[in-house]
Amino acid sequence: MGILAVGSVALDSVKTPFGREEEILGGSATYFSIAASYFTEISVIAVVGEDFPAQHVASLQKLGIDTSGLEKRPGKTFRWRGEYGFDLNTAKTLDTQLNVFADFSPQLRAEQRKCEFLFLGNIDPDLQRKVLDQMERPRLIACDTMNYWIENKPESLRKTLAGVDILLINDAETRQLAREANLVRAARIILSWGPKTLVIKRGEYGALMIDNKAAFGAPAFPLEEVVDPTGAGDSFAGGFVGYLAATRSSDQAALRKAVVFGSVMASFNVSEFGPRRLAALTYAEIEARFREFRDLTHFEDL
Amino acid sequence: MGILAVGSVALDSVKTPFGREEEILGGSATYFSIAASYFTEISVIAVVGEDFPAQHVASLQKLGIDTSGLEKRPGKTFRWRGEYGFDLNTAKTLDTQLNVFADFSPQLRAEQRKCEFLFLGNIDPDLQRKVLDQMERPRLIACDTMNYWIENKPESLRKTLAGVDILLINDAETRQLAREANLVRAARIILSWGPKTLVIKRGEYGALMIDNKAAFGAPAFPLEEVVDPTGAGDSFAGGFVGYLAATRSSDQAALRKAVVFGSVMASFNVSEFGPRRLAALTYAEIEARFREFRDLTHFEDL
Repeated sequence: MGILAVGSVALDSVKTPFGREEEILGGSATYFSIAASYFTEISVIAVVGEDFPAQHVASLQKLGIDTSGLEKRPGKTFRWRGEYGFDLNTAKTLDTQLNVFADFSPQLRAEQRKCEFLFLGNIDPDLQRKVLDQMERPRLIACDTMNYWIENKPESLRKTLAGVDILLINDAETRQLAREANLVRAARIILSWGPKTLVIKRGEYGALMIDNKAAFGAPAFPLEEVVDPTGAGDSFAGGFVGYLAATRSSDQAALRKAVVFGSVMASFNVSEFGPRRLAALTYAEIEARFREFRDLTHFEDL
Repeated sequence: MGILAVGSVALDSVKTPFGREEEILGGSATYFSIAASYFTEISVIAVVGEDFPAQHVASLQKLGIDTSGLEKRPGKTFRWRGEYGFDLNTAKTLDTQLNVFADFSPQLRAEQRKCEFLFLGNIDPDLQRKVLDQMERPRLIACDTMNYWIENKPESLRKTLAGVDILLINDAETRQLAREANLVRAARIILSWGPKTLVIKRGEYGALMIDNKAAFGAPAFPLEEVVDPTGAGDSFAGGFVGYLAATRSSDQAALRKAVVFGSVMASFNVSEFGPRRLAALTYAEIEARFREFRDLTHFEDL
């Protein structure tokens, strides 16, 4: 089995300058899994309430996603309501209702503990570690986080980071976590805490991957239509970890291509509300955009 | 003769989180010319007052810059005072004293009119056109502008743009000029007004070049020391136009390498106050950083 992903499965209500949608499928584990499903086998660990529409589960299963770890509990599904202005880089959270997510305590089954690739979506670092500690011997552990945990659970987050290989994080959070304004120095500080690689997501500006030996920068794909940035970071992570799991490698060459596949998946995701576009891709479309990325970024040698 | 550059030569007072300097050499034509001087012959058209230190003229001449078009006029030199916070992307202008620049009316000599490459630095678009109209048959015209002219002289700016080949502009100004929030669509609008190529400067995030056929994105060089961003855009322009003039080409391959050389020059410039570092480079250092840019951006094919 390929990747085990823990995170949220949610019902999102989103408003952007280009429209609004109520209670659509959302959540970090959702976007991640859909993106990763084009590359490898993927199992979701998450919880939903009794009100979670069966057709959403069916649409994940249709993509080959293993939803046997998607627990259904008495109560309501996690809900998020957010809004974007014309600067689509930052979401304004209007409301968060944890609901069944408040008591989420993932218990992995024997075969889930054996997964070789683990993605710890943006949830409480205590929960991330609870999953991590149940794993037998994962080959690669990638992790996401956000300002909320940096502010409210910094010590727990540091403990989680000590056990992960790759941290995916946005640039403002990188500075906040390291308490350092210079991004490169901030990255070096975080690398000293455990992760071997940092993938810094910069929204419409692209991504910067830094480890102790090298740096790799990729612009975001320039798009004429950006409708809803929700899930862009998780789609990126899904393409990134998905490619690494599919090739079972994590050397510099693989990591660079993984960043590009991450950017590809994020670029598709933002072109429609929710994960709609992401869920309707073909691998040929993904490969074509990967090649367009090469055209976008390469220049000849001297 | 290579490039003719018109713009400001100034005395800058700059404060950043890393220090402050009073009345140091500055101005768009200064940064541009110093950066371009590593690539080709460059002549400056600008005006200074009687108070302009002779050693600044000598330091430009030492780099091989032709200062015969640097007029000295009765009165004081143009002065700019600015400040940067920890977000080094945006300067806050505290004071601007036009002084002798207020009556600047450049008159080109016969040999200056014959220059093949023209750079119109960020000055009043009326003045930019006054220079442009005196040129005989320039091979390539590049132009910079800023929010002040977009707001105060939009019609004159549109007239100037109709006559230029390449517009270098930052991303907020691209959106402002086109009155369009989506950067790619904003670029297409501006391209329809005359320029064949737009080079969108994005500060620490890099640059995006767009024409009607292709796009090229380059990250900024990740730096552990950014001390003073003043002149980064003009240093970029100097490397960019300098490379094109040196190779006498402007096809897509040359334009892409020119963007990288622009990024290289900007990356050196920001590492010390004023144009100090920029003025003390060797071509070997420039080439070495160009190769580092390749390492920063390239990934293998599928």
